[in-house]
Amino acid sequence: MTTTVTALSVPEAGASFETVELERRDLRSDDVRIDIAYAGICHSDIHTVRGEWGERPFPITPGHEIIGTVAEVGSAVSRVKIGDTVGVGCFVDSCGECAACKDGEEQFCERGVVQTYATPDYHGEVTQGGYSQGVVVRDHFVLTIPDGVDLAATTPLLCAGITTYSPLKAHGVGPGSKVAVVGMGGLGHVAVKIAKALGAEVTVLSRTTSKEEDGRSFGADDYRATKDGNAFEELASSFDFILNTVGADLDVDAYLGLLGRGGTLVNVGAPSAPQKFGIFSLLTNRRNYAGSMVGGIPETQEMLDFCAEHGITATIELIDAGDVDAYYDKVVDGDVRYRAVIDAKTLRA
Amino acid sequence: MTTTVTALSVPEAGASFETVELERRDLRSDDVRIDIAYAGICHSDIHTVRGEWGERPFPITPGHEIIGTVAEVGSAVSRVKIGDTVGVGCFVDSCGECAACKDGEEQFCERGVVQTYATPDYHGEVTQGGYSQGVVVRDHFVLTIPDGVDLAATTPLLCAGITTYSPLKAHGVGPGSKVAVVGMGGLGHVAVKIAKALGAEVTVLSRTTSKEEDGRSFGADDYRATKDGNAFEELASSFDFILNTVGADLDVDAYLGLLGRGGTLVNVGAPSAPQKFGIFSLLTNRRNYAGSMVGGIPETQEMLDFCAEHGITATIELIDAGDVDAYYDKVVDGDVRYRAVIDAKTLRA
Repeated sequence: MTTTVTALSVPEAGASFETVELERRDLRSDDVRIDIAYAGICHSDIHTVRGEWGERPFPITPGHEIIGTVAEVGSAVSRVKIGDTVGVGCFVDSCGECAACKDGEEQFCERGVVQTYATPDYHGEVTQGGYSQGVVVRDHFVLTIPDGVDLAATTPLLCAGITTYSPLKAHGVGPGSKVAVVGMGGLGHVAVKIAKALGAEVTVLSRTTSKEEDGRSFGADDYRATKDGNAFEELASSFDFILNTVGADLDVDAYLGLLGRGGTLVNVGAPSAPQKFGIFSLLTNRRNYAGSMVGGIPETQEMLDFCAEHGITATIELIDAGDVDAYYDKVVDGDVRYRAVIDAKTLRA
Repeated sequence: MTTTVTALSVPEAGASFETVELERRDLRSDDVRIDIAYAGICHSDIHTVRGEWGERPFPITPGHEIIGTVAEVGSAVSRVKIGDTVGVGCFVDSCGECAACKDGEEQFCERGVVQTYATPDYHGEVTQGGYSQGVVVRDHFVLTIPDGVDLAATTPLLCAGITTYSPLKAHGVGPGSKVAVVGMGGLGHVAVKIAKALGAEVTVLSRTTSKEEDGRSFGADDYRATKDGNAFEELASSFDFILNTVGADLDVDAYLGLLGRGGTLVNVGAPSAPQKFGIFSLLTNRRNYAGSMVGGIPETQEMLDFCAEHGITATIELIDAGDVDAYYDKVVDGDVRYRAVIDAKTLRA
């Protein structure tokens, strides 16, 4: 027995969205059925449905930033109850038994984490994501949304929040840290807010200064245009931590050169071209170049609680389901300020 | 007034060594004159005098692994006294005032550290290194050699020891750490001994197993030939820390793939070609790629004390001054087991 929900779906790589009926599975004992209120649009959704990240099983309903209300729970579920406001992020299942799962880093599950959409799950079905009226998710992967927050604007934190919070925490960013955030898009603008709340001095490195006023309102202490070559000279060896949120190919040597002693550049964007730099960019100042990929369930809950406590949400444009195709182009052009969130009420069969 | 010492010197890039007379400066108030007993041969000496690391001021007397006896001290020197056994490593002066110097990381001095040879110092002279009978060095840069150690075999620790100890310590290697050491040369064989003494489980990754018996005698728990492609599959995601001691160009993706969650690959070798790898090699398992460059004076003293306490020396071939050219070829061919040290007694005018 299944439940039918209205959803947006892309039938093949690069096609436009269609409104379809999706079947959601009947609840297992540890499942939670969620009526979706909001679903964020992440740039990775676009890469996936446009076929830019390799073969994926179509049709695809994307969406891994989800907030809604618990509508039904399986017999073994005790963590949440009907009526609770909950969230779902980038993945919906993992083995639960490997070292990564036991350490709460399910994203690195050795069996392979089950992503929220376009991924074969452990039961032979392909997951479908949050651009829909409802979803069924194992209770372990359901986050609790703190009381009193702006739900629509909190939705993007399920990916953009944890993706930026996790490396900032892992590398000890706090009071006294000099942090640069590369890019002022969906991830970057949240990174600025979180880094500031952690106590860091924050500089935005963006191609131009067109978003400087916003950046400073988000908490940036400084804002530099990278088109201006002087920035790299003036800021040489000055940062403890740089978070690169852009997917474009950067001059890695130039950004590594901005790190002081023991400093770390973390990539959360995924440029397609190979990373290329001279080894002396790392040897000098014993610098680090690191990657990070979302974060585990315990840390995602910690991030949601931290953001609620510090009044942090994403800055969003709330959009109708019918406007998603148009907004995909706006996201690619960097014209969304700063994250588009689909109002699930506008999904109609 | 100066002192004249016999030394080995290369008149121009790529030339053979000549025996020359070098003038060492008269002592300033904070200077120490050292009668040299031993000088180690580091692969970087070879790169420098063969012109492989760019233009340097010839003639050059290389040598930055030095042990000897204090022969004379300036009026303001109190740290060491005549007759003490002391060492000199990769650098002999720094500004003393920048943040790096104040933190005891003189190698990253913002004014520019003065290397032990082939470097213009702050007084308008060019430094000349340890392949000689004597040297004059500022007291801050003179290390104390612990009592009772094998002096010739301790000499290479002044570079090979600190170069490997510093990143092992910086990245928290200790009991429970799974460490791989890439390369079983001058640096690698010392890294194995130090990593083992720190309590790690140590695997050597070498092109072949030709040095396996030695590697295991140095403390390696496992020894794998990288020519055997299976090693990379079998050891995937299994190390916390990898120290790459080789200067050759490696397949960076392959080595990053050996790191588990949060693991770090540190390069202390300096390949000439650009580093090149796919970003997913870092994103997966949130891996780190880092550099390291020798270590500061306080940490070098700490390393010397640690090695004395744990009975760690380099495994060396003690050679005559007349054999240095021949040994340079042997170092390049990987035929020295495992570090050549010049007996300074054999230096004759």
